[in-house]
Amino acid sequence: MNILIVFAHPEARSFNGALKDVAVDTLSKAGHDVVVSDLYAMGFHPATGAGDFTGRRADPEVLSIAAEQTHAVENGTLSPDIAAEQKKVLAADLVVFQFPIWWFSMPSILKGWVDRVFARGFAYLPGRKYDTGMLAGRRAMLSLTTGTSRDTYMPDGIDGAINDILWPIHNGILRYTGFDVLPPFVAYMPGRISAEERKAQLDAYRDHIGSFETLPPLFFHPLSDYGPDERLKPGVVARSGFQKNPE
Amino acid sequence: MNILIVFAHPEARSFNGALKDVAVDTLSKAGHDVVVSDLYAMGFHPATGAGDFTGRRADPEVLSIAAEQTHAVENGTLSPDIAAEQKKVLAADLVVFQFPIWWFSMPSILKGWVDRVFARGFAYLPGRKYDTGMLAGRRAMLSLTTGTSRDTYMPDGIDGAINDILWPIHNGILRYTGFDVLPPFVAYMPGRISAEERKAQLDAYRDHIGSFETLPPLFFHPLSDYGPDERLKPGVVARSGFQKNPE
Repeated sequence: MNILIVFAHPEARSFNGALKDVAVDTLSKAGHDVVVSDLYAMGFHPATGAGDFTGRRADPEVLSIAAEQTHAVENGTLSPDIAAEQKKVLAADLVVFQFPIWWFSMPSILKGWVDRVFARGFAYLPGRKYDTGMLAGRRAMLSLTTGTSRDTYMPDGIDGAINDILWPIHNGILRYTGFDVLPPFVAYMPGRISAEERKAQLDAYRDHIGSFETLPPLFFHPLSDYGPDERLKPGVVARSGFQKNPE
Repeated sequence: MNILIVFAHPEARSFNGALKDVAVDTLSKAGHDVVVSDLYAMGFHPATGAGDFTGRRADPEVLSIAAEQTHAVENGTLSPDIAAEQKKVLAADLVVFQFPIWWFSMPSILKGWVDRVFARGFAYLPGRKYDTGMLAGRRAMLSLTTGTSRDTYMPDGIDGAINDILWPIHNGILRYTGFDVLPPFVAYMPGRISAEERKAQLDAYRDHIGSFETLPPLFFHPLSDYGPDERLKPGVVARSGFQKNPE
Protein backbone atom coordinates (compact mmCIF):
# COMPACT_ATOMS: atom_id res chain seq x y z
CA MET A 1 0.00 0.00 0.00
CA ASN A 2 0.96 3.65 -0.29
CA ILE A 3 1.62 5.54 2.91
CA LEU A 4 2.14 9.27 3.35
CA ILE A 5 3.74 10.48 6.56
CA VAL A 6 3.39 14.21 7.19
CA PHE A 7 6.19 15.00 9.60
CA ALA A 8 6.03 18.25 11.57
CA HIS A 9 9.07 18.71 13.78
CA PRO A 10 12.00 21.06 13.15
CA GLU A 11 14.60 18.58 14.45
CA ALA A 12 15.30 15.27 12.68
CA ARG A 13 17.03 13.93 15.80
CA SER A 14 13.97 14.53 17.99
CA PHE A 15 11.84 11.74 19.38
CA ASN A 16 9.27 12.65 16.75
CA GLY A 17 11.99 12.02 14.20
CA ALA A 18 12.68 8.63 15.78
CA LEU A 19 8.98 7.73 15.60
CA LYS A 20 8.88 8.78 11.96
CA ASP A 21 11.94 6.62 11.26
CA VAL A 22 10.32 3.64 13.00
CA ALA A 23 7.25 4.02 10.77
CA VAL A 24 9.31 4.30 7.58
CA ASP A 25 11.39 1.29 8.54
CA THR A 26 8.48 -0.89 9.68
CA LEU A 27 6.23 -0.09 6.74
CA SER A 28 8.99 -0.36 4.12
CA LYS A 29 10.09 -3.75 5.43
CA ALA A 30 6.46 -4.90 5.21
CA GLY A 31 6.53 -4.05 1.52
CA HIS A 32 4.67 -0.76 1.56
CA ASP A 33 5.66 2.35 -0.37
CA VAL A 34 6.31 5.20 2.04
CA VAL A 35 6.51 8.89 1.18
CA VAL A 36 7.47 11.47 3.85
CA SER A 37 6.52 15.13 3.67
CA ASP A 38 9.05 16.64 6.08
CA LEU A 39 7.43 20.04 6.40
CA TYR A 40 10.29 21.89 8.10
CA ALA A 41 12.93 20.38 5.81
CA MET A 42 10.80 21.28 2.77
CA GLY A 43 10.36 24.83 4.04
CA PHE A 44 6.65 24.28 3.57
CA HIS A 45 4.80 27.60 3.60
CA PRO A 46 2.72 27.43 6.75
CA ALA A 47 -0.25 29.76 6.17
CA THR A 48 -2.95 30.01 3.54
CA GLY A 49 -3.40 33.36 1.84
CA ALA A 50 -3.52 35.14 -1.49
CA GLY A 51 -0.26 33.48 -2.52
CA ASP A 52 -1.99 30.09 -2.74
CA PHE A 53 -3.76 31.11 -5.93
CA THR A 54 -1.64 31.47 -9.05
CA GLY A 55 -4.27 32.23 -11.68
CA ARG A 56 -6.96 34.81 -12.12
CA ARG A 57 -8.96 34.89 -8.91
CA ALA A 58 -12.69 34.28 -8.66
CA ASP A 59 -12.85 37.67 -6.94
CA PRO A 60 -9.71 39.78 -7.40
CA GLU A 61 -11.00 42.36 -4.89
CA VAL A 62 -12.15 40.57 -1.75
CA LEU A 63 -10.32 37.42 -0.65
CA SER A 64 -12.44 34.48 0.48
CA ILE A 65 -10.19 31.47 1.03
CA ALA A 66 -13.05 28.99 0.58
CA ALA A 67 -14.23 30.58 -2.67
CA GLU A 68 -10.72 30.92 -4.10
CA GLN A 69 -9.76 27.37 -3.15
CA THR A 70 -12.81 26.00 -4.96
CA HIS A 71 -12.11 28.18 -7.99
CA ALA A 72 -8.41 27.25 -8.05
CA VAL A 73 -9.08 23.52 -7.74
CA GLU A 74 -11.53 23.72 -10.64
CA ASN A 75 -9.05 25.67 -12.76
CA GLY A 76 -5.84 23.94 -11.75
CA THR A 77 -4.41 27.18 -10.40
CA LEU A 78 -3.52 26.21 -6.86
CA SER A 79 0.08 26.94 -5.94
CA PRO A 80 2.32 24.05 -7.13
CA ASP A 81 3.50 23.22 -3.59
CA ILE A 82 -0.14 22.59 -2.60
CA ALA A 83 -0.89 20.58 -5.74
CA ALA A 84 2.14 18.38 -5.06
CA GLU A 85 0.88 17.55 -1.57
CA GLN A 86 -2.62 16.86 -2.86
CA LYS A 87 -1.18 14.38 -5.34
CA LYS A 88 0.54 12.55 -2.48
CA VAL A 89 -2.71 12.46 -0.48
CA LEU A 90 -4.69 11.09 -3.43
CA ALA A 91 -2.11 8.33 -3.94
CA ALA A 92 -2.10 7.34 -0.27
CA ASP A 93 -4.01 4.48 1.34
CA LEU A 94 -2.88 5.68 4.77
CA VAL A 95 -1.95 9.22 5.86
CA VAL A 96 -0.02 9.59 9.14
CA PHE A 97 0.47 12.91 10.92
CA GLN A 98 3.62 12.76 13.09
CA PHE A 99 3.88 15.72 15.47
CA PRO A 100 4.47 16.97 18.99
CA ILE A 101 1.40 18.28 20.80
CA TRP A 102 2.05 21.99 21.14
CA TRP A 103 -0.64 23.93 22.95
CA PHE A 104 -3.10 21.03 22.90
CA SER A 105 -3.00 20.83 19.11
CA MET A 106 -0.74 20.50 16.09
CA PRO A 107 2.28 22.72 15.37
CA SER A 108 1.24 25.62 13.17
CA ILE A 109 3.20 24.28 10.20
CA LEU A 110 1.02 21.16 10.17
CA LYS A 111 -2.17 23.18 10.68
CA GLY A 112 -1.04 25.29 7.75
CA TRP A 113 -0.58 22.12 5.68
CA VAL A 114 -4.18 21.18 6.47
CA ASP A 115 -5.50 24.70 5.85
CA ARG A 116 -3.80 24.80 2.44
CA VAL A 117 -3.82 21.19 1.18
CA PHE A 118 -7.30 20.10 2.29
CA ALA A 119 -8.76 22.81 0.09
CA ARG A 120 -12.45 23.23 -0.53
CA GLY A 121 -13.17 21.44 -3.78
CA PHE A 122 -10.36 18.97 -3.14
CA ALA A 123 -11.19 17.52 0.30
CA TYR A 124 -14.79 18.63 0.82
CA LEU A 125 -17.71 20.43 -0.77
CA PRO A 126 -21.35 20.93 0.18
CA GLY A 127 -22.77 17.41 0.49
CA ARG A 128 -19.25 15.95 0.49
CA LYS A 129 -18.28 15.80 4.15
CA TYR A 130 -17.91 13.11 6.82
CA ASP A 131 -19.08 9.77 5.30
CA THR A 132 -19.09 11.36 1.86
CA GLY A 133 -15.93 13.43 2.29
CA MET A 134 -13.85 13.56 -0.85
CA LEU A 135 -10.93 11.61 0.65
CA ALA A 136 -13.09 8.60 1.62
CA GLY A 137 -11.62 5.15 1.12
CA ARG A 138 -8.40 6.10 2.86
CA ARG A 139 -7.17 5.61 6.41
CA ALA A 140 -5.56 8.28 8.58
CA MET A 141 -3.76 8.15 11.91
CA LEU A 142 -2.15 10.53 14.38
CA SER A 143 1.17 9.75 16.04
CA LEU A 144 2.16 12.28 18.63
CA THR A 145 4.25 13.13 21.64
CA THR A 146 3.25 15.03 24.76
CA GLY A 147 5.17 17.19 27.20
CA THR A 148 3.29 15.96 30.25
CA SER A 149 2.24 12.68 31.81
CA ARG A 150 -0.49 10.23 30.93
CA ASP A 151 -2.28 11.22 34.19
CA THR A 152 -2.70 14.82 33.04
CA TYR A 153 -4.55 13.51 29.96
CA MET A 154 -7.01 11.31 31.85
CA PRO A 155 -10.69 12.35 31.79
CA ASP A 156 -10.26 13.93 35.24
CA GLY A 157 -6.72 15.14 34.49
CA ILE A 158 -5.82 18.81 34.47
CA ASP A 159 -5.38 18.81 30.67
CA GLY A 160 -8.52 16.77 29.85
CA ALA A 161 -8.88 13.39 28.13
CA ILE A 162 -6.48 12.97 25.24
CA ASN A 163 -9.18 11.61 22.93
CA ASP A 164 -11.39 14.61 23.62
CA ILE A 165 -8.49 16.98 22.98
CA LEU A 166 -7.86 15.19 19.69
CA TRP A 167 -11.54 15.18 18.61
CA PRO A 168 -11.24 18.47 16.69
CA ILE A 169 -8.54 16.78 14.60
CA HIS A 170 -10.03 13.28 14.44
CA ASN A 171 -13.56 14.38 13.66
CA GLY A 172 -13.08 17.88 12.33
CA ILE A 173 -10.20 17.30 9.92
CA LEU A 174 -9.81 13.58 9.21
CA ARG A 175 -13.33 12.17 9.46
CA TYR A 176 -14.73 15.40 7.99
CA THR A 177 -12.85 14.74 4.76
CA GLY A 178 -13.91 11.08 4.70
CA PHE A 179 -10.96 9.19 6.21
CA ASP A 180 -11.37 6.11 8.35
CA VAL A 181 -9.54 7.29 11.46
CA LEU A 182 -7.31 4.76 13.21
CA PRO A 183 -6.62 4.97 16.97
CA PRO A 184 -3.81 7.43 17.67
CA PHE A 185 -0.40 6.49 18.99
CA VAL A 186 0.54 8.70 21.93
CA ALA A 187 4.06 8.76 23.37
CA TYR A 188 3.79 10.45 26.76
CA MET A 189 6.57 12.87 27.68
CA PRO A 190 9.47 11.16 25.94
CA GLY A 191 11.62 14.10 26.98
CA ARG A 192 11.30 13.21 30.67
CA ILE A 193 11.71 9.43 30.78
CA SER A 194 14.63 7.01 30.65
CA ALA A 195 16.29 5.78 27.47
CA GLU A 196 14.85 2.35 28.23
CA GLU A 197 11.32 3.72 28.46
CA ARG A 198 11.83 5.61 25.22
CA LYS A 199 12.92 2.39 23.55
CA ALA A 200 9.75 0.72 24.83
CA GLN A 201 7.71 3.53 23.28
CA LEU A 202 9.42 3.05 19.92
CA ASP A 203 8.76 -0.70 20.13
CA ALA A 204 5.11 -0.05 20.95
CA TYR A 205 4.84 2.23 17.94
CA ARG A 206 6.43 -0.43 15.75
CA ASP A 207 3.61 -2.77 16.77
CA HIS A 208 0.94 -0.09 16.36
CA ILE A 209 1.92 1.14 12.92
CA GLY A 210 2.79 -2.37 11.80
CA SER A 211 -0.80 -3.46 12.41
CA PHE A 212 -2.51 -0.54 10.67
CA GLU A 213 -4.31 -2.83 8.24
CA THR A 214 -6.17 -4.60 11.03
CA LEU A 215 -6.62 -1.79 13.61
CA PRO A 216 -10.35 -1.09 13.93
CA PRO A 217 -11.07 2.58 13.19
CA LEU A 218 -12.58 4.95 15.74
CA PHE A 219 -16.35 5.13 15.81
CA PHE A 220 -18.17 8.10 14.30
CA HIS A 221 -21.90 8.26 13.85
CA PRO A 222 -22.90 7.59 10.23
CA LEU A 223 -24.75 10.36 8.41
CA SER A 224 -27.92 8.25 8.67
CA ASP A 225 -27.88 8.88 12.44
CA TYR A 226 -28.40 12.62 11.82
CA GLY A 227 -31.57 14.52 11.00
CA PRO A 228 -31.79 17.32 8.45
CA ASP A 229 -30.59 19.74 11.18
CA GLU A 230 -27.36 17.67 11.44
CA ARG A 231 -28.16 16.74 15.04
CA LEU A 232 -28.51 13.12 16.16
CA LYS A 233 -31.99 11.80 15.51
CA PRO A 234 -34.16 11.21 18.56
CA GLY A 235 -33.35 7.82 20.02
CA VAL A 236 -29.77 7.70 18.75
CA VAL A 237 -27.46 7.42 21.74
CA ALA A 238 -24.38 9.62 21.33
CA ARG A 239 -21.25 7.48 21.50
CA SER A 240 -18.70 9.31 19.39
CA GLY A 241 -15.98 11.49 20.92
CA PHE A 242 -17.49 14.08 23.25
CA GLN A 243 -20.89 14.14 21.59
CA LYS A 244 -23.73 14.11 24.11
CA ASN A 245 -27.50 13.73 23.95
CA PRO A 246 -29.50 16.70 25.22
CA GLU A 247 -30.47 16.28 28.86
CA MET B 1 -7.56 49.54 30.17
CA ASN B 2 -5.17 48.18 27.53
CA ILE B 3 -6.61 45.76 25.00
CA LEU B 4 -4.71 43.69 22.46
CA ILE B 5 -6.67 42.25 19.55
CA VAL B 6 -4.85 39.54 17.63
CA PHE B 7 -6.55 39.50 14.24
CA ALA B 8 -6.07 36.45 12.01
CA HIS B 9 -7.85 36.85 8.70
CA PRO B 10 -6.25 37.64 5.33
CA GLU B 11 -9.05 39.97 4.22
CA ALA B 12 -9.77 43.26 6.00
CA ARG B 13 -13.23 43.41 4.40
CA SER B 14 -14.23 40.01 5.78
CA PHE B 15 -16.81 39.57 8.51
CA ASN B 16 -13.92 38.88 10.86
CA GLY B 17 -12.59 42.29 9.87
CA ALA B 18 -15.98 43.82 10.66
CA LEU B 19 -15.99 42.17 14.10
CA LYS B 20 -12.49 43.47 14.76
CA ASP B 21 -13.60 46.97 13.74
CA VAL B 22 -16.60 46.77 16.06
CA ALA B 23 -14.30 45.87 18.95
CA VAL B 24 -11.84 48.68 18.18
CA ASP B 25 -14.67 51.18 17.89
CA THR B 26 -16.58 50.05 20.98
CA LEU B 27 -13.56 49.80 23.22
CA SER B 28 -11.96 53.04 22.03
CA LYS B 29 -15.18 54.97 22.57
CA ALA B 30 -15.32 53.53 26.09
CA GLY B 31 -11.92 55.09 26.74
CA HIS B 32 -9.73 52.01 26.43
CA ASP B 33 -6.44 51.84 24.58
CA VAL B 34 -6.64 49.31 21.79
CA VAL B 35 -3.74 47.74 19.91
CA VAL B 36 -4.34 45.42 16.95
CA SER B 37 -1.87 42.80 15.77
CA ASP B 38 -3.12 42.18 12.22
CA LEU B 39 -1.10 39.04 11.57
CA TYR B 40 -1.60 38.81 7.81
CA ALA B 41 -1.03 42.53 7.27
CA MET B 42 2.13 42.34 9.40
CA GLY B 43 3.37 39.35 7.44
CA PHE B 44 3.80 37.64 10.79
CA HIS B 45 6.00 34.58 10.44
CA PRO B 46 3.66 31.69 11.18
CA ALA B 47 5.88 28.85 12.42
CA THR B 48 8.38 28.46 15.23
CA GLY B 49 11.80 27.16 14.31
CA ALA B 50 15.51 27.84 14.48
CA GLY B 51 14.95 31.37 13.14
CA ASP B 52 13.23 32.39 16.38
CA PHE B 53 16.56 32.43 18.22
CA THR B 54 18.98 35.19 17.34
CA GLY B 55 21.79 34.55 19.79
CA ARG B 56 23.99 31.62 20.63
CA ARG B 57 21.74 28.63 21.16
CA ALA B 58 21.59 26.57 24.35
CA ASP B 59 22.35 23.59 22.10
CA PRO B 60 23.65 24.54 18.65
CA GLU B 61 23.40 20.90 17.51
CA VAL B 62 19.98 19.53 18.40
CA LEU B 63 17.01 21.90 18.31
CA SER B 64 14.54 21.70 21.20
CA ILE B 65 12.02 24.53 20.89
CA ALA B 66 11.17 24.45 24.61
CA ALA B 67 14.82 24.57 25.68
CA GLU B 68 15.76 27.28 23.20
CA GLN B 69 12.74 29.42 24.06
CA THR B 70 13.65 29.30 27.74
CA HIS B 71 17.27 30.11 26.97
CA ALA B 72 16.36 32.93 24.59
CA VAL B 73 13.89 34.53 27.04
CA GLU B 74 16.57 34.47 29.73
CA ASN B 75 19.14 35.99 27.41
CA GLY B 76 16.94 38.41 25.51
CA THR B 77 17.73 36.70 22.23
CA LEU B 78 14.26 35.91 20.94
CA SER B 79 13.59 37.21 17.46
CA PRO B 80 12.50 40.90 17.62
CA ASP B 81 9.09 40.17 16.05
CA ILE B 82 8.33 37.80 18.93
CA ALA B 83 9.66 40.19 21.58
CA ALA B 84 7.43 42.95 20.18
CA GLU B 85 4.34 40.76 20.52
CA GLN B 86 5.31 39.73 24.04
CA LYS B 87 5.58 43.37 25.02
CA LYS B 88 2.02 43.94 23.76
CA VAL B 89 0.76 40.94 25.73
CA LEU B 90 2.44 42.11 28.94
CA ALA B 91 0.87 45.55 28.55
CA ALA B 92 -2.61 44.14 27.94
CA ASP B 93 -5.41 43.78 30.47
CA LEU B 94 -7.48 41.93 27.87
CA VAL B 95 -6.27 39.87 24.90
CA VAL B 96 -8.82 39.06 22.17
CA PHE B 97 -8.24 36.48 19.44
CA GLN B 98 -10.37 37.33 16.38
CA PHE B 99 -10.43 34.50 13.84
CA PRO B 100 -12.51 32.24 11.61
CA ILE B 101 -12.78 28.62 12.75
CA TRP B 102 -10.83 26.70 10.14
CA TRP B 103 -10.79 22.95 10.64
CA PHE B 104 -12.25 23.17 14.15
CA SER B 105 -9.40 25.38 15.35
CA MET B 106 -7.47 28.57 14.69
CA PRO B 107 -5.91 29.52 11.36
CA SER B 108 -2.30 28.39 11.30
CA ILE B 109 -1.00 31.96 11.42
CA LEU B 110 -2.66 32.44 14.83
CA LYS B 111 -1.47 29.04 16.07
CA GLY B 112 1.99 30.11 14.96
CA TRP B 113 1.64 33.33 16.94
CA VAL B 114 0.82 31.23 20.03
CA ASP B 115 3.62 28.72 19.37
CA ARG B 116 6.14 31.55 19.04
CA VAL B 117 4.92 34.30 21.38
CA PHE B 118 3.77 32.19 24.35
CA ALA B 119 7.31 30.92 24.71
CA ARG B 120 8.45 28.73 27.59
CA GLY B 121 9.98 31.10 30.12
CA PHE B 122 7.65 33.91 29.05
CA ALA B 123 4.17 32.39 29.40
CA TYR B 124 4.83 29.25 31.47
CA LEU B 125 7.50 27.28 33.27
CA PRO B 126 7.45 24.25 35.55
CA GLY B 127 5.21 25.24 38.47
CA ARG B 128 3.92 28.22 36.51
CA LYS B 129 0.86 26.96 34.66
CA TYR B 130 -2.89 27.30 34.99
CA ASP B 131 -3.64 29.33 38.19
CA THR B 132 0.02 30.27 38.42
CA GLY B 133 0.61 30.77 34.69
CA MET B 134 2.94 33.67 33.97
CA LEU B 135 0.25 35.78 32.28
CA ALA B 136 -2.12 35.66 35.28
CA GLY B 137 -4.00 38.84 36.15
CA ARG B 138 -5.14 39.33 32.54
CA ARG B 139 -8.34 38.45 30.75
CA ALA B 140 -8.58 36.72 27.38
CA MET B 141 -11.46 36.12 24.99
CA LEU B 142 -12.12 34.39 21.69
CA SER B 143 -14.25 35.99 19.00
CA LEU B 144 -14.83 33.72 16.05
CA THR B 145 -16.90 32.90 13.01
CA THR B 146 -18.06 29.49 11.81
CA GLY B 147 -18.87 28.10 8.38
CA THR B 148 -21.80 26.02 9.55
CA SER B 149 -24.93 26.45 11.65
CA ARG B 150 -25.46 26.67 15.39
CA ASP B 151 -27.19 23.25 15.23
CA THR B 152 -24.04 21.53 14.00
CA TYR B 153 -22.25 22.82 17.11
CA MET B 154 -24.80 21.57 19.62
CA PRO B 155 -23.71 18.75 21.97
CA ASP B 156 -25.48 16.24 19.70
CA GLY B 157 -24.54 18.10 16.52
CA ILE B 158 -22.37 16.55 13.85
CA ASP B 159 -19.46 18.85 14.70
CA GLY B 160 -19.72 18.56 18.50
CA ALA B 161 -20.40 21.23 21.14
CA ILE B 162 -18.65 24.49 20.39
CA ASN B 163 -17.39 24.88 23.96
CA ASP B 164 -15.85 21.41 23.85
CA ILE B 165 -14.21 22.16 20.52
CA LEU B 166 -12.79 25.35 22.01
CA TRP B 167 -11.55 23.68 25.23
CA PRO B 168 -8.07 22.99 23.83
CA ILE B 169 -7.77 26.75 23.27
CA HIS B 170 -9.63 27.95 26.37
CA ASN B 171 -7.95 25.56 28.78
CA GLY B 172 -4.81 24.55 26.93
CA ILE B 173 -3.61 27.95 25.75
CA LEU B 174 -5.38 30.71 27.66
CA ARG B 175 -6.04 29.23 31.11
CA TYR B 176 -2.76 27.31 30.92
CA THR B 177 -0.85 30.56 30.81
CA GLY B 178 -2.93 32.08 33.62
CA PHE B 179 -5.58 34.16 31.86
CA ASP B 180 -9.10 34.55 33.17
CA VAL B 181 -11.01 33.32 30.13
CA LEU B 182 -14.16 35.20 29.20
CA PRO B 183 -17.05 33.49 27.38
CA PRO B 184 -16.40 33.41 23.63
CA PHE B 185 -18.38 35.32 21.06
CA VAL B 186 -19.43 33.02 18.21
CA ALA B 187 -20.90 34.37 14.98
CA TYR B 188 -22.49 31.41 13.23
CA MET B 189 -22.01 31.21 9.45
CA PRO B 190 -22.04 34.92 8.64
CA GLY B 191 -21.28 33.96 5.05
CA ARG B 192 -24.65 32.30 4.63
CA ILE B 193 -27.11 34.67 6.30
CA SER B 194 -28.81 37.93 5.36
CA ALA B 195 -27.26 41.36 5.70
CA GLU B 196 -29.80 42.05 8.43
CA GLU B 197 -28.75 39.00 10.39
CA ARG B 198 -25.11 39.96 9.99
CA LYS B 199 -25.88 43.38 11.39
CA ALA B 200 -27.60 41.72 14.37
CA GLN B 201 -24.43 39.68 14.95
CA LEU B 202 -22.30 42.82 14.92
CA ASP B 203 -24.68 44.47 17.39
CA ALA B 204 -24.53 41.41 19.63
CA TYR B 205 -20.75 41.55 19.55
CA ARG B 206 -20.83 45.24 20.42
CA ASP B 207 -22.76 44.32 23.57
CA HIS B 208 -20.51 41.36 24.35
CA ILE B 209 -17.16 43.11 24.00
CA GLY B 210 -18.54 46.26 25.57
CA SER B 211 -19.29 44.37 28.76
CA PHE B 212 -15.96 42.57 29.09
CA GLU B 213 -15.26 44.10 32.47
CA THR B 214 -18.33 42.47 34.00
CA LEU B 215 -18.56 39.19 32.05
CA PRO B 216 -17.99 36.34 34.49
CA PRO B 217 -15.08 34.18 33.34
CA LEU B 218 -15.45 30.50 32.43
CA PHE B 219 -14.99 28.04 35.27
CA PHE B 220 -11.79 26.03 35.56
CA HIS B 221 -10.95 23.91 38.56
CA PRO B 222 -8.42 25.62 40.82
CA LEU B 223 -5.09 23.87 41.36
CA SER B 224 -6.23 22.99 44.88
CA ASP B 225 -8.80 20.62 43.32
CA TYR B 226 -5.99 18.48 41.92
CA GLY B 227 -3.82 15.89 43.63
CA PRO B 228 -0.09 15.49 43.09
CA ASP B 229 -0.87 13.37 39.99
CA GLU B 230 -2.70 16.39 38.51
CA ARG B 231 -5.99 14.51 38.51
CA LEU B 232 -9.04 15.79 40.37
CA LYS B 233 -8.97 14.79 44.02
CA PRO B 234 -11.48 12.15 45.09
CA GLY B 235 -14.80 13.82 45.82
CA VAL B 236 -14.26 16.77 43.48
CA VAL B 237 -17.03 16.72 40.89
CA ALA B 238 -15.69 17.55 37.43
CA ARG B 239 -17.48 20.59 36.05
CA SER B 240 -14.99 22.27 33.75
CA GLY B 241 -15.17 21.83 29.96
CA PHE B 242 -15.22 18.16 29.03
CA GLN B 243 -13.51 16.95 32.17
CA LYS B 244 -15.19 13.87 33.65
CA ASN B 245 -14.88 11.87 36.85
CA PRO B 246 -13.84 8.24 36.43
CA GLU B 247 -16.85 5.90 36.29
